[in-house]
Amino acid sequence: MFTNARQVTIEWGDCDPAGIVYYPRYFAMFDTSTARLFEAALGMSKREMLKTYGIIGFPMVETSAKFGAPSRFGDVVHIKSRITRMGRASFDVAHILHHADGVAAIEASETRVWAIADPNDAERIKGETIPQSVITALSQTTP
Amino acid sequence: MFTNARQVTIEWGDCDPAGIVYYPRYFAMFDTSTARLFEAALGMSKREMLKTYGIIGFPMVETSAKFGAPSRFGDVVHIKSRITRMGRASFDVAHILHHADGVAAIEASETRVWAIADPNDAERIKGETIPQSVITALSQTTP
Amino acid sequence: MFTNARQVTIEWGDCDPAGIVYYPRYFAMFDTSTARLFEAALGMSKREMLKTYGIIGFPMVETSAKFGAPSRFGDVVHIKSRITRMGRASFDVAHILHHADGVAAIEASETRVWAIADPNDAERIKGETIPQSVITALSQTTP
Amino acid sequence: MFTNARQVTIEWGDCDPAGIVYYPRYFAMFDTSTARLFEAALGMSKREMLKTYGIIGFPMVETSAKFGAPSRFGDVVHIKSRITRMGRASFDVAHILHHADGVAAIEASETRVWAIADPNDAERIKGETIPQSVITALSQTTP
Repeated sequence: MFTNARQVTIEWGDCDPAGIVYYPRYFAMFDTSTARLFEAALGMSKREMLKTYGIIGFPMVETSAKFGAPSRFGDVVHIKSRITRMGRASFDVAHILHHADGVAAIEASETRVWAIADPNDAERIKGETIPQSVITALSQTTP
Repeated sequence: MFTNARQVTIEWGDCDPAGIVYYPRYFAMFDTSTARLFEAALGMSKREMLKTYGIIGFPMVETSAKFGAPSRFGDVVHIKSRITRMGRASFDVAHILHHADGVAAIEASETRVWAIADPNDAERIKGETIPQSVITALSQTTP
Repeated sequence: MFTNARQVTIEWGDCDPAGIVYYPRYFAMFDTSTARLFEAALGMSKREMLKTYGIIGFPMVETSAKFGAPSRFGDVVHIKSRITRMGRASFDVAHILHHADGVAAIEASETRVWAIADPNDAERIKGETIPQSVITALSQTTP
Repeated sequence: MFTNARQVTIEWGDCDPAGIVYYPRYFAMFDTSTARLFEAALGMSKREMLKTYGIIGFPMVETSAKFGAPSRFGDVVHIKSRITRMGRASFDVAHILHHADGVAAIEASETRVWAIADPNDAERIKGETIPQSVITALSQTTP
């Protein structure tokens, strides 16, 4: 399945009074990593993707994370993200965050839904079948 | 085990371009809910708690969340938090976020560690035995 | 002109490794305070306001803030917000953040525009004349 | 005076329900830009800088920003930051955020203090004389 990696520098504003990353910030990093994964597989920005496929995004259905070694501001971490399942209207992603020394500090997984605005109520969201071209692109082995 | 509930108003800045809460923000809400749970059980602020017990906080070890119905800015949600385990140096909390109409929109669980700065390296964190008085206070049935 | 006040508890996640509020968080607090000010004056939520008046919000045009004494997690601060100008398509708000002991810790001012999506390009934003009823409500002396 | 520039990709989580950057996020971007400016001038990370000089950071004293054209997720913006004054215990920075097409979308300025923990009260912060080597490094013309 498709894989993508990126580096993130931990910033001062990502950290809490204990001097370590405030953990909700990791989820923001993983959210960006999932966007990058799709962008890399589809060759378009998330914004183009939303327009192209008429979706409002891919909201989170379920996520979990195990936190090992903490990170501090100034640390450069490496996040590797991988599609682990492409379903009909949902998909799974796994993220591993490594420290610069190679230590796997966090493992996270997520299930998201390919979502459109409900045609009967713009304030509601509903899952939609993922186009086959998207499934194919995300199912490929990363070149 | 000890239980605490609070209301949270979803703000404009909590929401993303899909108009729903940006999910990392829910973890920030749950983090505050866990602080409130301890504050209610111990009768002191988190800041006093850190000083009183000489800890740097209770960093997250593992967390997971299932997201059902989304929330939008202006929604008032109800978060109920409950201690589900008090271990020697770690503890578990469960959060349920209800919408105003009673719908259980999110269920989350977390394992945290009672942590001190490593006396040999102020940049490292290590688990520490939770004082018996804290275990007792958090293990009580909420009055 | 209309005035509104609210209390905010500074949370752990609002603070940085220096143990004080990460200053961008103050702007999020002031953004919520401006929403509350309008909600109090108009008697409806920001979400209803956007629907009622067909606006996408009131984006910031210019803001400034002077920071005196810092705040720390656990502090309960008091934010007083006041309309200082209602223009044709823009308005000014002043915020003062007091500590519990009465010290005025921050003074901020902002100019915002009453904005709609450009009918010719949904991705563009343009200012729109503020309805007279809104000007009247915000110009009143707070009861 | 010293100048530094960097590119920032606007992320989904930086944006609000109007689809544009939630303005407090810009201040977080500028905060990082100021850190990068010092890092580039001094040749060390902010974390090393804090240890080397015994400071707790450089808290904001006063900031202002004018917002022109909004940015949306997926936009790549360019932030140019420049020291505009090096005082005895405080300094000024100006930031200009350009869109990819060269439009100057935001101009911001800030005054910060070179700060240490008060030796008589670790919870208090006080300004401290900026070391001459720091003033010299930041006053140089960018190579």
